[in-house]
Amino acid sequence: MSFIRQYITCWVACVLCGLTLAEANAAEHPRLLLTADGVGQIRSSLGRVPLFDQTLASTKQEVDAEIASGIHVPIPADFSGGYTHERHKRNFFIAEKAGALFQILGDERYASYLRDMLFEYAEMYPTLPLHPKERSYARGKLFWQCLNDANWLLYMSLGYDAIYDWLSEEDREFLNAHLFRPFADFLSVDNPQFFNRVHNHSTWGTAAVGMLGLVLDDTELIERALYGLTDDGLEVGALDDDGGFIKLENQRVGFLANLEEPFSPDGYYTEGPYYQRYAMYPFLAFAIAMQNAKPEYAVLEHKNNVLMKAVGALVALSDSDGDFFAINDAQKGMSIFTPSMTLAVSAAYAYGGRDPQFLSIAEGQGRVRLDQAGLALAEDIALRRGEPLQQQSVVLRDGPEGNEGGIGVLRGGDLAVVFKFTAQGLSHGHYDKLSYALHHGGDEVIQDYGLVRFVNIGQKGGGNYLPENTTWAKQSIAHNTMVLDQKSHFGGNYAVGSQHHATLEYASLDNESLLSIYAKDSNAYPGRDMRRSLSLVTLPGLNKPLLVDLFTVTGTANMIDLPTHYLGQFIEISESLNVQREPAPLGIDSGYQHIWQEARSQPTSGNALKFSWLVANRFYTMFRSTEPGDFFVHGRLGANDPDFNLRRDPTLIHRRVPQTDRTTFVSVIDSHGEYSPVTELSQGQQSVISDVKIIFDNTEYTVASIFLGSGDAFTLAWAHQDFSEDKIHEVDLPQGLLRWAGPQQIEKQEVEINE
Amino acid sequence: MSFIRQYITCWVACVLCGLTLAEANAAEHPRLLLTADGVGQIRSSLGRVPLFDQTLASTKQEVDAEIASGIHVPIPADFSGGYTHERHKRNFFIAEKAGALFQILGDERYASYLRDMLFEYAEMYPTLPLHPKERSYARGKLFWQCLNDANWLLYMSLGYDAIYDWLSEEDREFLNAHLFRPFADFLSVDNPQFFNRVHNHSTWGTAAVGMLGLVLDDTELIERALYGLTDDGLEVGALDDDGGFIKLENQRVGFLANLEEPFSPDGYYTEGPYYQRYAMYPFLAFAIAMQNAKPEYAVLEHKNNVLMKAVGALVALSDSDGDFFAINDAQKGMSIFTPSMTLAVSAAYAYGGRDPQFLSIAEGQGRVRLDQAGLALAEDIALRRGEPLQQQSVVLRDGPEGNEGGIGVLRGGDLAVVFKFTAQGLSHGHYDKLSYALHHGGDEVIQDYGLVRFVNIGQKGGGNYLPENTTWAKQSIAHNTMVLDQKSHFGGNYAVGSQHHATLEYASLDNESLLSIYAKDSNAYPGRDMRRSLSLVTLPGLNKPLLVDLFTVTGTANMIDLPTHYLGQFIEISESLNVQREPAPLGIDSGYQHIWQEARSQPTSGNALKFSWLVANRFYTMFRSTEPGDFFVHGRLGANDPDFNLRRDPTLIHRRVPQTDRTTFVSVIDSHGEYSPVTELSQGQQSVISDVKIIFDNTEYTVASIFLGSGDAFTLAWAHQDFSEDKIHEVDLPQGLLRWAGPQQIEKQEVEINE
Repeated sequence: MSFIRQYITCWVACVLCGLTLAEANAAEHPRLLLTADGVGQIRSSLGRVPLFDQTLASTKQEVDAEIASGIHVPIPADFSGGYTHERHKRNFFIAEKAGALFQILGDERYASYLRDMLFEYAEMYPTLPLHPKERSYARGKLFWQCLNDANWLLYMSLGYDAIYDWLSEEDREFLNAHLFRPFADFLSVDNPQFFNRVHNHSTWGTAAVGMLGLVLDDTELIERALYGLTDDGLEVGALDDDGGFIKLENQRVGFLANLEEPFSPDGYYTEGPYYQRYAMYPFLAFAIAMQNAKPEYAVLEHKNNVLMKAVGALVALSDSDGDFFAINDAQKGMSIFTPSMTLAVSAAYAYGGRDPQFLSIAEGQGRVRLDQAGLALAEDIALRRGEPLQQQSVVLRDGPEGNEGGIGVLRGGDLAVVFKFTAQGLSHGHYDKLSYALHHGGDEVIQDYGLVRFVNIGQKGGGNYLPENTTWAKQSIAHNTMVLDQKSHFGGNYAVGSQHHATLEYASLDNESLLSIYAKDSNAYPGRDMRRSLSLVTLPGLNKPLLVDLFTVTGTANMIDLPTHYLGQFIEISESLNVQREPAPLGIDSGYQHIWQEARSQPTSGNALKFSWLVANRFYTMFRSTEPGDFFVHGRLGANDPDFNLRRDPTLIHRRVPQTDRTTFVSVIDSHGEYSPVTELSQGQQSVISDVKIIFDNTEYTVASIFLGSGDAFTLAWAHQDFSEDKIHEVDLPQGLLRWAGPQQIEKQEVEINE
Repeated sequence: MSFIRQYITCWVACVLCGLTLAEANAAEHPRLLLTADGVGQIRSSLGRVPLFDQTLASTKQEVDAEIASGIHVPIPADFSGGYTHERHKRNFFIAEKAGALFQILGDERYASYLRDMLFEYAEMYPTLPLHPKERSYARGKLFWQCLNDANWLLYMSLGYDAIYDWLSEEDREFLNAHLFRPFADFLSVDNPQFFNRVHNHSTWGTAAVGMLGLVLDDTELIERALYGLTDDGLEVGALDDDGGFIKLENQRVGFLANLEEPFSPDGYYTEGPYYQRYAMYPFLAFAIAMQNAKPEYAVLEHKNNVLMKAVGALVALSDSDGDFFAINDAQKGMSIFTPSMTLAVSAAYAYGGRDPQFLSIAEGQGRVRLDQAGLALAEDIALRRGEPLQQQSVVLRDGPEGNEGGIGVLRGGDLAVVFKFTAQGLSHGHYDKLSYALHHGGDEVIQDYGLVRFVNIGQKGGGNYLPENTTWAKQSIAHNTMVLDQKSHFGGNYAVGSQHHATLEYASLDNESLLSIYAKDSNAYPGRDMRRSLSLVTLPGLNKPLLVDLFTVTGTANMIDLPTHYLGQFIEISESLNVQREPAPLGIDSGYQHIWQEARSQPTSGNALKFSWLVANRFYTMFRSTEPGDFFVHGRLGANDPDFNLRRDPTLIHRRVPQTDRTTFVSVIDSHGEYSPVTELSQGQQSVISDVKIIFDNTEYTVASIFLGSGDAFTLAWAHQDFSEDKIHEVDLPQGLLRWAGPQQIEKQEVEINE
């Protein structure tokens, strides 16, 4: 297309759209993440701030290589992993970077490259049909789903902002009329089912549209983004292709509603950290751009600074290596060091109080943003102001108002226990009420399976969610929680699960020798009341905390399964196991169809189970109270998995046919030793624990004894009601009266209690 | 025991033994690894050589803590992992260190501590019965097997040497009469089945006895060690409890025979690097002590400096992280950085030509020996003379004369292919003729299973070899080699296997674009001739080498299995797999009883197999020629494993019912991409290869075509006889005459060859 033709087309388009030529000149550019002031600071700091200079040099190298390879704007054809998808994705990443380089280095090559790329898009876009892949509930044009088109618009707007003042008025008007405005309309008014909901998709959609609105200083676009479409014509109750609700009754919409609803007042994002990490970028990018360009809207401070709290929540919900705990649909290995967290870290530092732990995260990321916030971070790293990650025991409430359960992390020694008593977590939620996972340093000891998806690996179902995500990963038996009658919580029904949440009864995080959280759920199985208390207990004379787990259910059930999804090498078990010559699937649905029954124990006589395993060269032993007739199934994941999508992980399932309407399990997990394959030496091979017994249990109290190999014994007592700290509780045991204050108690037994 | 009583006992014992009081004073001490000269050098260097000073400080801290805890010499009771075993083991390690500290620091606390410990042993030893655990063919006294008693004597002799001149003559004589001389006799004349054989046990036994001989300057003991017992009264053909031969016809014995027989002229140790690493300590310790104290025997130079070559072989047989390749019985994770290699590294450096790569290994070990060789190493590290590990493609011959096959390592890109065509490897050998393993950097891609043993983990069979080591790990199907009629090589018979070895036909290690080794075996299955060629081939235009594998067998077989023990996540397969609802074991013996048949393909029509997997975040694809009717079994290890001793690793078995007396497999394995769980980006998900076909095959030649996705095709040709470099070969193909020089050829096809 010649320039003359471009100009004419542009002029015509402007007239048609009713644009005024002055519109885009209301304030100077750049004004979004990188500001004109920031450019000045950066230019005067070049060569003095190592991490910033390194990031600039590597970005320059990357963009220069792209410029050398030419501009590639192919007709869209592929799913993620395919050429056209990856190419368009690369284009928008490079566009933002080219814009920053132009601002910082003043080299017009970058501006020209970006302009030429935009013109190629503007030439293609007006006649582009919907993407040929038909899988999505909201098909895009450049990509198979609007979500990726929104990514494109958000990043491209950042690049556009950087060259906006450099472009001729004619070029701007042409691009606005042929590319940007139709693009924003397509993502909003043309796709309300994508734009007008509360979901990470809409966060991207609204942020992208809003970002363009800021570039153009277009109040209508900005407010469309903030408040959503007034009239979207959507029906209440429609579902997307992940099974998520598109529209609920009285649903508020727009960017601010997306910020208010999924984040709790503590910054917990109801889908979990894996999706939060992805969503943080549009949340923060648009909020910071608003702060820079339109501070009067106070978007960054919205909901009592929840976005800053949300970055802290991501750090709280990661292990000591910075890997996020697997919560709901979550791919393992994703961490606070991911590039998509670069903005979050610099925003949390620059706008959130300069917490020095973010400096050490930024150092781990090895790069900063090429804007004034990234410069501030890099300067303070150079001044060695960083401090190591500060991860403490914490409870983060769930729900927009913070009253829909939550998630807790107990940390002691190098252990971290993640206890989940949240709401459903939107369409990426799992049926895992009162589940937990155990981490030791950067290793998983008792796992949450995560998701069944190979993100961006095209050979595995196009990189999308695989059927086993629904049939296994979301099901209750895939989690370390209680399963009644082989059915998942809420019958595995999303609509039902979405109406409920577990509740926190109490948390005690101050006493380092007894960290404890007690939560309950009475909706996962109607008429059944499940309660779990998880504690990290440091007994006198032991230098490592024990994980103590009380799990009780009141109400009828024909069969109770309590799986322990340990990882690593089976070492020994106290029960006699009959291994199966030809293992059969353990059930036909609810996830059981994916578990091979490798071995099954004899029914126990009621002695505690003792089970030891070795993972990441550390020894662990679980002691578990049993009742006569209980037995154990050693399961192996992988049955009914025709495409080998599942890992062949082990699980140990405690199975009980309860004799009464109330039954209780008490477990103690001891992390007791280490092994080195290089020296072949092991230390602490044997647990210090010798036995665990429940000695009293009713709906008011449970009392258990823990016996050590040393001969010492300890009594653990839990109250199941009236959790105030000063409430005095009394239990009349055969051995005498046990009396204590507060919800939970550990006491050394002066004389061993015999039943 | 009072000192007066000690003295009297000692005096009586001396008279009874006919010792002269002058005997032990013939030369100054220390004279073994640490010498009097060395002590002088060390003392004058203190405070100037960081790694030496650090090692000294940490050793001092360790020994001081032991001294503070008192001396513990319990009555022997336990297997390894148990208290008494670990305590006696700790004692001898500490004894050597205390001796060195005494010499270097001149602090008599260390000498007194060691003397007091020795006297406690001397008090116990004379009345000590055999160890109560009866498992070993050669039960020790302090430990369940003589091997560990020999460890004790060797280390204690080093400690004893350090305080020998400091001790009173009376003390020395008492210790010699009550402890050391009876100890040495017990390990030799009382246990010829342990002392008088060629086995790592005897290496320890002879080195220990010889080391004491050097302390005492006792020629009889020294020569007993070097040359063995003249008359041992052993029967030819007896077996130890690992199934190894104790005595063969005309077996030479003693330390020198142990040095001559298991090491090939290239320094390859026939049991493999895992046992070599363990054996190197006594070999080198005694050889260096002989060099220092009795250089006239020339032990260190014996067999053309084979001990120095042997250290080089350990480096050659490790991956880029320094982890040893799993060869024969071998626990994974053992590496050149193990403390037991500290002596090897300093010896190889100080006595073997100061190769700078040993400096970087010593840096990785983080410690040096506290003797003059360790000082030399630490000094050159301080001078930054170290260089990175130098691991090159290599062939190491096996057999005392170097004519019993060997092992090859091809290295290209970051890949390392380990190709095994050795002799049996004594009692730790596996039935794995012509097997290979593929490593990429520090990761296993196609594995050798290793051993089935949890060394020093008491709960797993006392830390000893488990039954599945024999029933699985040694069997042919556990390896990446050919199995005929579901029977292991040599019928899994050790006596038969020990009579044979594979042979190297040619190796080409100079041409980086075609690294190749060709080996054959005609004894594993009598009457059947198996030949394998493994090559790392770099095609024009590709930046990574391909692993090309030709495997052919001539002779009758009803069924051929060719397993590929890949590790990691199954990605996709070109064959249609039927997964089994209830997987059954694949056979009843020869290792097959441990493989569950997870899935089985339809018989193929003859198209090449394409199988992709992901391990350590890298993508691999194997292309394999097939014949119509071939099929594939996807197996999972773990059947018939009642104690959960086996890992649940996958295997893909290519099964063929050959239609003729000769059949051939050609595979190409492409390492083509990477995945990051942090960025969720993958590069090179798809292989550049599109197809592999055999286009000609007879006993003289095989020709195959490799087709690339780019449309290019390459012809690979192998000669099966007359491997000279200048021999001209000709094959008359339908497409025309193929003509080349030398044993193997790659040629780009100008026009695609269609069958």
